[in-house]
Amino acid sequence: MGDIFVSNGNEVNGKIHSPPNGYRKSCWYEEEIEENLRWCFALNSILHTGATPYQDIALLDTKPFGKALVIDGKLQSAEIDEFIYHECLVHPSLLYHPNPKRVFIMGGGEGSTAREILRHNTVEKVFMCDIDEEVVEFCRSYLVVNKEAFCDPRLDLIINDARAELESRDEHFDVIIGDLADPIEGGPCYKLYTKSFYECIVKPRLAQGGIFVTQAGPAGIFSHTEVFSCIYNTLKQVFKYVVPYSAHIPSYADTWGWVMASDSPFSLTAEELDLRTKQRIQGENRYLDGKTFTSVSTLSKAVRHSLDNETHVYTEGTARFIYGYGSANKHDQD
Amino acid sequence: MGDIFVSNGNEVNGKIHSPPNGYRKSCWYEEEIEENLRWCFALNSILHTGATPYQDIALLDTKPFGKALVIDGKLQSAEIDEFIYHECLVHPSLLYHPNPKRVFIMGGGEGSTAREILRHNTVEKVFMCDIDEEVVEFCRSYLVVNKEAFCDPRLDLIINDARAELESRDEHFDVIIGDLADPIEGGPCYKLYTKSFYECIVKPRLAQGGIFVTQAGPAGIFSHTEVFSCIYNTLKQVFKYVVPYSAHIPSYADTWGWVMASDSPFSLTAEELDLRTKQRIQGENRYLDGKTFTSVSTLSKAVRHSLDNETHVYTEGTARFIYGYGSANKHDQD
Amino acid sequence: MGDIFVSNGNEVNGKIHSPPNGYRKSCWYEEEIEENLRWCFALNSILHTGATPYQDIALLDTKPFGKALVIDGKLQSAEIDEFIYHECLVHPSLLYHPNPKRVFIMGGGEGSTAREILRHNTVEKVFMCDIDEEVVEFCRSYLVVNKEAFCDPRLDLIINDARAELESRDEHFDVIIGDLADPIEGGPCYKLYTKSFYECIVKPRLAQGGIFVTQAGPAGIFSHTEVFSCIYNTLKQVFKYVVPYSAHIPSYADTWGWVMASDSPFSLTAEELDLRTKQRIQGENRYLDGKTFTSVSTLSKAVRHSLDNETHVYTEGTARFIYGYGSANKHDQD
Amino acid sequence: MGDIFVSNGNEVNGKIHSPPNGYRKSCWYEEEIEENLRWCFALNSILHTGATPYQDIALLDTKPFGKALVIDGKLQSAEIDEFIYHECLVHPSLLYHPNPKRVFIMGGGEGSTAREILRHNTVEKVFMCDIDEEVVEFCRSYLVVNKEAFCDPRLDLIINDARAELESRDEHFDVIIGDLADPIEGGPCYKLYTKSFYECIVKPRLAQGGIFVTQAGPAGIFSHTEVFSCIYNTLKQVFKYVVPYSAHIPSYADTWGWVMASDSPFSLTAEELDLRTKQRIQGENRYLDGKTFTSVSTLSKAVRHSLDNETHVYTEGTARFIYGYGSANKHDQD
Repeated sequence: MGDIFVSNGNEVNGKIHSPPNGYRKSCWYEEEIEENLRWCFALNSILHTGATPYQDIALLDTKPFGKALVIDGKLQSAEIDEFIYHECLVHPSLLYHPNPKRVFIMGGGEGSTAREILRHNTVEKVFMCDIDEEVVEFCRSYLVVNKEAFCDPRLDLIINDARAELESRDEHFDVIIGDLADPIEGGPCYKLYTKSFYECIVKPRLAQGGIFVTQAGPAGIFSHTEVFSCIYNTLKQVFKYVVPYSAHIPSYADTWGWVMASDSPFSLTAEELDLRTKQRIQGENRYLDGKTFTSVSTLSKAVRHSLDNETHVYTEGTARFIYGYGSANKHDQD
Repeated sequence: MGDIFVSNGNEVNGKIHSPPNGYRKSCWYEEEIEENLRWCFALNSILHTGATPYQDIALLDTKPFGKALVIDGKLQSAEIDEFIYHECLVHPSLLYHPNPKRVFIMGGGEGSTAREILRHNTVEKVFMCDIDEEVVEFCRSYLVVNKEAFCDPRLDLIINDARAELESRDEHFDVIIGDLADPIEGGPCYKLYTKSFYECIVKPRLAQGGIFVTQAGPAGIFSHTEVFSCIYNTLKQVFKYVVPYSAHIPSYADTWGWVMASDSPFSLTAEELDLRTKQRIQGENRYLDGKTFTSVSTLSKAVRHSLDNETHVYTEGTARFIYGYGSANKHDQD
Repeated sequence: MGDIFVSNGNEVNGKIHSPPNGYRKSCWYEEEIEENLRWCFALNSILHTGATPYQDIALLDTKPFGKALVIDGKLQSAEIDEFIYHECLVHPSLLYHPNPKRVFIMGGGEGSTAREILRHNTVEKVFMCDIDEEVVEFCRSYLVVNKEAFCDPRLDLIINDARAELESRDEHFDVIIGDLADPIEGGPCYKLYTKSFYECIVKPRLAQGGIFVTQAGPAGIFSHTEVFSCIYNTLKQVFKYVVPYSAHIPSYADTWGWVMASDSPFSLTAEELDLRTKQRIQGENRYLDGKTFTSVSTLSKAVRHSLDNETHVYTEGTARFIYGYGSANKHDQD
Repeated sequence: MGDIFVSNGNEVNGKIHSPPNGYRKSCWYEEEIEENLRWCFALNSILHTGATPYQDIALLDTKPFGKALVIDGKLQSAEIDEFIYHECLVHPSLLYHPNPKRVFIMGGGEGSTAREILRHNTVEKVFMCDIDEEVVEFCRSYLVVNKEAFCDPRLDLIINDARAELESRDEHFDVIIGDLADPIEGGPCYKLYTKSFYECIVKPRLAQGGIFVTQAGPAGIFSHTEVFSCIYNTLKQVFKYVVPYSAHIPSYADTWGWVMASDSPFSLTAEELDLRTKQRIQGENRYLDGKTFTSVSTLSKAVRHSLDNETHVYTEGTARFIYGYGSANKHDQD
């Protein structure tokens, strides 16, 4: 796992020579997962911090999860388990698609989503459209594991609002991937989770047989009601076939969700997924294979029931948010 | 969910009348999941604390997870999600068994395991054998949700070491359930996870077609190597058929594991499990049904691979432990 | 010290029988002293919590400081060191006064200030005027150490706003004591620290030779600029003689300040203070004697310099606040 | 204050450009002051960490106290208030001495003690004897405020055990200063606080009229019994005149103590101390002047009483330790 994120220079490595023991437990990163719940990692060091016009960013070196990218005080990606998130986000849709050539990423500035897409030998062009140039530059500089992806000639990096970019284009994509920040109130992304956005902006840009997939927030036995069930239900209004799935990501202290949607059916067995994986994907997946996808796309009774009964549809006037700004909707549950 | 644990009296409820806001985030329960990882819950109150000859116990009222039972500084059970653990521990083995009448619980003093077993209408006798009478009394008094189970005439409560008890008996059980504390170094339970214990003590006490199931510690993508893969591999040395499965439990901040083992094959479809659930189990499961079991018993590629390659077998001389040494050790120093 | 606060019943004591070790460090009280500074006490138990129309209150049993009264998320008083605060608040002014008979306490609902005053054998009447009846009742019930004071026939307990009460009275007092909550923005007390209040309300109610003393917030080498220097400078505008003094109170994690003011000079030696202490005060002081007062009323060079140069005067339009509500003024200092 | 510690290069400053808001409260330094008491500072960054053969060291950039030197998990010195400690340690003894020319520092590798001594124009030679060359090098590199002191030709830096060094020398010193780490069990220093060390090693090396002064651990109303009262009582066995004094140091969350000892009497008024300060010390003290010394050397009733009644004398067989055993011990376990 050590090769996932590697720091890009001797200064950094030089500085952290064998952090001593007594010191180990003195410095901590602390995240409020919810108002009443904290998750704390011992720190080796604070590698970099900065503020962009859009977001605050930090790269930390944590003891339990390796290097960790934190945006606006929320953990985005940790060295030792980001592969779970990114394999789940990327591979199911690309494998279900018969021949994905052109892929559009909304967000994804970290580079890991592009990295996973570029492992597919069918892919000819990846459009990565992130609004925050500084985050992209920050990640390009510090996340060595994604260096190759950033240099791949098939990658077309666009600095723009994903909505504006998709509106301005006539072309179609085989797969569109939503790798956006969570719909935090006041954050830049919540309008990219609405029914009208999916219907009027995303769907028209999908080619015949095209697939849309989005990260869909926490999907735990309780937390799935925050946004996951709504995103699922919203996509169900727009696409014929919708597949929700989820996986536990240790550094998030929760099960995470994704939703995949299309007007073409998703019908491959685990074996067929494994075969396509072998034919199309360079290198080995660490988390996902056919059986794993069977498991992660079979939700537990409680979550299935809750998704079946979800009636809320995201519109610009009725957005729901995950915990972030004063925990708007959590309060109601208490 | 409010009915899972209910406090047993007005004094307690009276005392917590509407905890005020400023105060809310001032009091915290903090658990070191690992040396470098902390998990913290805001507290409403500390309901009860005590020490038995074997263990330290506390019942806390936490904001994110409701009432929580803590033994030796480790969360055992939280009101809002203990049903995941106990449904997973109990129902698969009892459903796979054609007609479970006599069930033996090693440990289980909390009473929740017995509660779930007693929902099965085939069950005639439940033997619950816990070494710590005071924990049993504590739970009987405070965990109102298990009150009925403690009073069920089919329950035979035994205060004894589970090993000694099993050795002293000639009779056979349809299902034996290991609901023991984690194998913490210095804790009372690690000898009940060894090959010789399974071979010489447990297996001889299983009736024809009998099934053994045990909780098997953390089973996350990284944490499964602590004890889960070993328990699995150890049981594989002793039984013909072994089924590992796992589920994310929010209050544990991890995916948890169980292993089910038998010399008879486990061969039921999801639909058959659902049918038996309907026929045999009173009330509704909240977490587990046939599809859920399909999902939780299909481990991810990474964990499957790791279990396949595990070579360690638990013997008394080669036990592995989960994190917790420091605290066990602390007791002696204080 | 164990006799300072004693819980009033067996239920409480019964419940906390020998809190176990492993558990000891799991539950914590955490206070944000400033936005970037936290102070955390291990908890034995949460004895009582409640909300009044004015304030949130809690009584905690902490490991390092014994029972602790917390109002609006800020520690007010801890069993093992409240004597420092209350001896410093009460005894200097009563000793400097030639013959204090009638004493008025603004606030003081905890009862400890009255307790210390009632130790003076010259005192004939203590008027304790607190706005929050429920806090008074709470303290009367739970702070056994103050039980006797609450029953003393010389105590006249008034539930009212201290300003309104003083305005409505014609009589004069030998000593008026400000034992009010800190001037937190949005809190009930900041108007009772202004020049006009001192000039128009307090001073007219002092008898000939009368003394006013008030708690005056943090007085540490940095923290004294929050409110201490202002309160000092404000009182200097109103009274001829003003004596600031300060003492370190461990449970506050800071040095605390008081300011004593009069139009009569303060001129007693340490020996004379000791003599009056002997003649007038029943029982032994634990913290304060003549030498101690010499020490605590001699501020360090840095603080003296800062007080000499303070120009700010509290008026209703120019109040300064200590950290509390979003740390208004701390932000400006960063 | 900003000029006390300045980082030595653009890399460091460059890296911390305006740490963003959300990030501010995510990273914390946490110290266990006692087993049941924690003190936590928000972090800007972890500037440097390292391990020497003797100790673990770290330089942190903290929000509330600026840059902070941490040794073996205990805060040694913080940018914004180290002047209190070092002015108190150095100036009283040098001012009381009629003409201090030769000063020997036991420990003091940080350089701040030498810096304060070198401000005295009577001083011809400062011997700074620290056992840990790497800590000295670390501080010389990173604590810019002490750069000048490290380059002063009057400074003679010796890397050696202070005891061995003093034993090996025949010469005498006007002032010997103990700036050693606290007597933590297992730490390198506890033997340098014993009666035999003071009697057989220190005293013989003092010139006629010479003064010994040592930092003496926490001296708060409760914490003074840990080591302060013992160090005082031990020195009383060896010297005719012994002066204990103490001052609150915010970053330590406690009042700190020093003890000054000599066979010549200490008899100067506050005014005489101010005069000598003016005559001999370059630059302005920030904390200490004559009045301040009067205050800090007049202990409170409780502490005076406790010191008067202390009977314990430090010998190698009867050392007392301040809190910290747990962490020293931890090193061996990791």
